[in-house]
Amino acid sequence: MRRFVILGRHASASGDFLLDDLPGTSGRLDVLVRCVRAALLVSHGVRRDAIVYLVLGGGAGAPRVLRVEGSAARYLRPDERSLATLFKKALATSPKGAAESFAEARPGVAVASGGVERVLADVGRAQLVLLETEGADVRGQPALDAPDVALFVGDHTGFDAAARSRLLDLGACCTSVGPLALHAEDAVVVATNELDRREAARRA
Amino acid sequence: MRRFVILGRHASASGDFLLDDLPGTSGRLDVLVRCVRAALLVSHGVRRDAIVYLVLGGGAGAPRVLRVEGSAARYLRPDERSLATLFKKALATSPKGAAESFAEARPGVAVASGGVERVLADVGRAQLVLLETEGADVRGQPALDAPDVALFVGDHTGFDAAARSRLLDLGACCTSVGPLALHAEDAVVVATNELDRREAARRA
Repeated sequence: MRRFVILGRHASASGDFLLDDLPGTSGRLDVLVRCVRAALLVSHGVRRDAIVYLVLGGGAGAPRVLRVEGSAARYLRPDERSLATLFKKALATSPKGAAESFAEARPGVAVASGGVERVLADVGRAQLVLLETEGADVRGQPALDAPDVALFVGDHTGFDAAARSRLLDLGACCTSVGPLALHAEDAVVVATNELDRREAARRA
Repeated sequence: MRRFVILGRHASASGDFLLDDLPGTSGRLDVLVRCVRAALLVSHGVRRDAIVYLVLGGGAGAPRVLRVEGSAARYLRPDERSLATLFKKALATSPKGAAESFAEARPGVAVASGGVERVLADVGRAQLVLLETEGADVRGQPALDAPDVALFVGDHTGFDAAARSRLLDLGACCTSVGPLALHAEDAVVVATNELDRREAARRA
């Protein structure tokens, strides 16, 4: 299983944003929405072996986590507005505050209260990996050979120090996707490509 | 210089589409818009060494080509709606039919009539590369070492046979970004990452 955890420091946890101005009203949920497409969708299909967690740190009810499972999600469309609409409905209809475990709001889309700790409880013993510009190259990174891997990606403002420190304490390793600082969604694409290549090599 | 040419077989050449339903009304211009972000934007910046051509094969006035130059473009935002708004205005205000060379409609954004031939006339002697699932692996592909490279990417329906045949006749080589068929924008990201790595290696 491959899991991507996108940390949206100011991304709206309430669903209270405008679809006509996603970047301006959602705490840049648009970045996270693009990460979901990048992690879950291939040409004419969904990656059933991938799960995305969006950690929503902004607005009323924060923090909350929105989880999208490729194996169970239905009607995932690739464009930002369609995905944002799906997540807006899921956030608006899910109970706020009390939900300490993930409650499914739409097929394959679940919401829980809490932040990084909620994700850590859900990923179990997955190998933790931070995607950062300073880490060792993702090509050849041994940690990505783990059968269950959870890759953490910061939004446009990067990781907050407390979350980063917590993940390192838990044994997370740092890896880089290339020589330039990329958008979060592009980091997801490059890491996914590396995972695809390793899986294909194992099968061959 | 790196150039990406995205072939949108049914993408709207007129700008006559709804921003609230881009996938449903624009001939999937949403795919092409995401390719522009992937090719031109990095974290907090624009790639000044990249140019994107969108070949728009659908609707009134087709075919037309919309060209975005990283070195000259201003106010490029990463979200689909903002980019689609920019392109809608550029297409609507540019002369239709008569424009046989690129006319700038917005800073760094130019429109011309014509299809693949218009692009070929503009890219000069750039090395032509087709991104396809069946080609040799992009990692280690010698063609990507050319100082000026033009990478052609199909939309969600792939290349049309005539365009593919024409490019192969001109000496284009085929290359693959990995073991799975990806969205066009993800193919752009993986190829861009390979180009970034080679450039960093040359500089080191």
